[in-house]
Amino acid sequence: MDTLMKGADVAAAMKEGLIKETEDLKEKGIHPCLGIVRVGERPDDMAYERGARKRMESIGIRCEVTELPEDITQEAFEEAFRGVNDDPRIHGILLFRPLPPHLDEEPVRAMIHPLKDADCMSPVNIAKVFSGDESGYAPCTPEAVMEMLDHYKISLKGKRVTVIGRSMVVGKPLSMLLLKRHATVTVCHTRTVELSKTCRDAQILVAAAGKARMVTGDMVGDGAVVVDVGINVDEEGNLCGDVDFDSVQEKASHISPVPRGVGSVTSSVLAKHVIKGARCLNEGC
Amino acid sequence: MDTLMKGADVAAAMKEGLIKETEDLKEKGIHPCLGIVRVGERPDDMAYERGARKRMESIGIRCEVTELPEDITQEAFEEAFRGVNDDPRIHGILLFRPLPPHLDEEPVRAMIHPLKDADCMSPVNIAKVFSGDESGYAPCTPEAVMEMLDHYKISLKGKRVTVIGRSMVVGKPLSMLLLKRHATVTVCHTRTVELSKTCRDAQILVAAAGKARMVTGDMVGDGAVVVDVGINVDEEGNLCGDVDFDSVQEKASHISPVPRGVGSVTSSVLAKHVIKGARCLNEGC
Repeated sequence: MDTLMKGADVAAAMKEGLIKETEDLKEKGIHPCLGIVRVGERPDDMAYERGARKRMESIGIRCEVTELPEDITQEAFEEAFRGVNDDPRIHGILLFRPLPPHLDEEPVRAMIHPLKDADCMSPVNIAKVFSGDESGYAPCTPEAVMEMLDHYKISLKGKRVTVIGRSMVVGKPLSMLLLKRHATVTVCHTRTVELSKTCRDAQILVAAAGKARMVTGDMVGDGAVVVDVGINVDEEGNLCGDVDFDSVQEKASHISPVPRGVGSVTSSVLAKHVIKGARCLNEGC
Repeated sequence: MDTLMKGADVAAAMKEGLIKETEDLKEKGIHPCLGIVRVGERPDDMAYERGARKRMESIGIRCEVTELPEDITQEAFEEAFRGVNDDPRIHGILLFRPLPPHLDEEPVRAMIHPLKDADCMSPVNIAKVFSGDESGYAPCTPEAVMEMLDHYKISLKGKRVTVIGRSMVVGKPLSMLLLKRHATVTVCHTRTVELSKTCRDAQILVAAAGKARMVTGDMVGDGAVVVDVGINVDEEGNLCGDVDFDSVQEKASHISPVPRGVGSVTSSVLAKHVIKGARCLNEGC
């Protein structure tokens, strides 16, 4: 390995610009504000919330958390969400998902103001990501992958990129962002035959499969760029990615670790979206 | 070549079921009706319109054409479109695109009733195709490709499929339909390096590049299934596809011709969508 792609370095590089934009807006009387909507107290959500609040504070963005009880009714949930959505002081909304099983997400997807849709729930933004229209918002994680690749000056045009995973949270939107940048994209998944060969052929490999250390050194081409989007807990209770770091780092030219990789960039992308929302809602896009 | 994949055979096989569904609806007093909205008199549009009317008639679906002058104002265009959209007798809408350059398509995309959106203009249906939600409507051409592959019993699960083209009309939505069926999908385009190799590696190759006879025999693996979505006019004024039929048919196991291939299936898919619209609008989905 030549380069360890560290999330903190990417976030640090983004920070200066985000602070500047926030200050410019504040001078105009606009104070960018993220509205977090959380139902229940799932530890993963709580951890992400702490990180996001810290990131927003460090940039100068306000943060308002709406905590809702886990047994909230659909009606009360929608009413609370509508309150956040209609609040003119809030410029971006993060709703933790999945919701408890008794709640239906569809009504709030349809309701959310597309300009406040900081993590791409609305069909309007989903359609924009699909069509390559950059006026909307992509989900934070795939955009964090793009920020990481750009930070380390990985050129994408004409490159063979393999994405493992076809979720709406990472794999599919990431494939569209990569296509927009003129990469030749192959999407693999659980039913892919010859996964090893398809991965080995890639110049850039992104693992978003949600399976601990499934990408091993023999699946990676010499000098490939490997981005790990997985967040798993291994048998010993340790956090790990989809990539078997030790064996892959011998083959890859660039590799992102887990933890301290892509996951450390997502809240910076979230901040970027809140700032964009504040600007667009007040000044037009 | 073992099998010539003929559009007419696919359409014929679909016809019986479509007639049956239409008759069932008529017995309940619902007469499925396609509303065509055409601005100007572009020869391509006129030709497609003739074919679509004939197909609808043969199935028992009514057809209402709203012809608008090429120099219509945006306001008058939107008003005319709203009239068709609000007409309870119309269950599916086909708007010919591209519109003349002075007209903006966005307002009607936002306006169209998602259940009447027979060719996937609405962000609601675009987002559904992207996310693999089959309750919406895919654009007719990529769905016609799927109908053709299914008719000829081409299994997709785990297959290596290469799609040439990344348009919102064919390449991207087709890739999503293929992914949903568990194919491993590679999307190629004008910036792809090593296009020949990527095509040759595919077990199923779909050409939707819009470039006359660009796929030649040396780009096709032995026994591959080749679907040609291109409609081009060659130097001598003849209609031809993206596939060089003569050289490719020596390598492929299955090949679809142009004309008389995928293009002959799209209006059957359109009919299917009008019937689905009539059912969903009247009885719920």
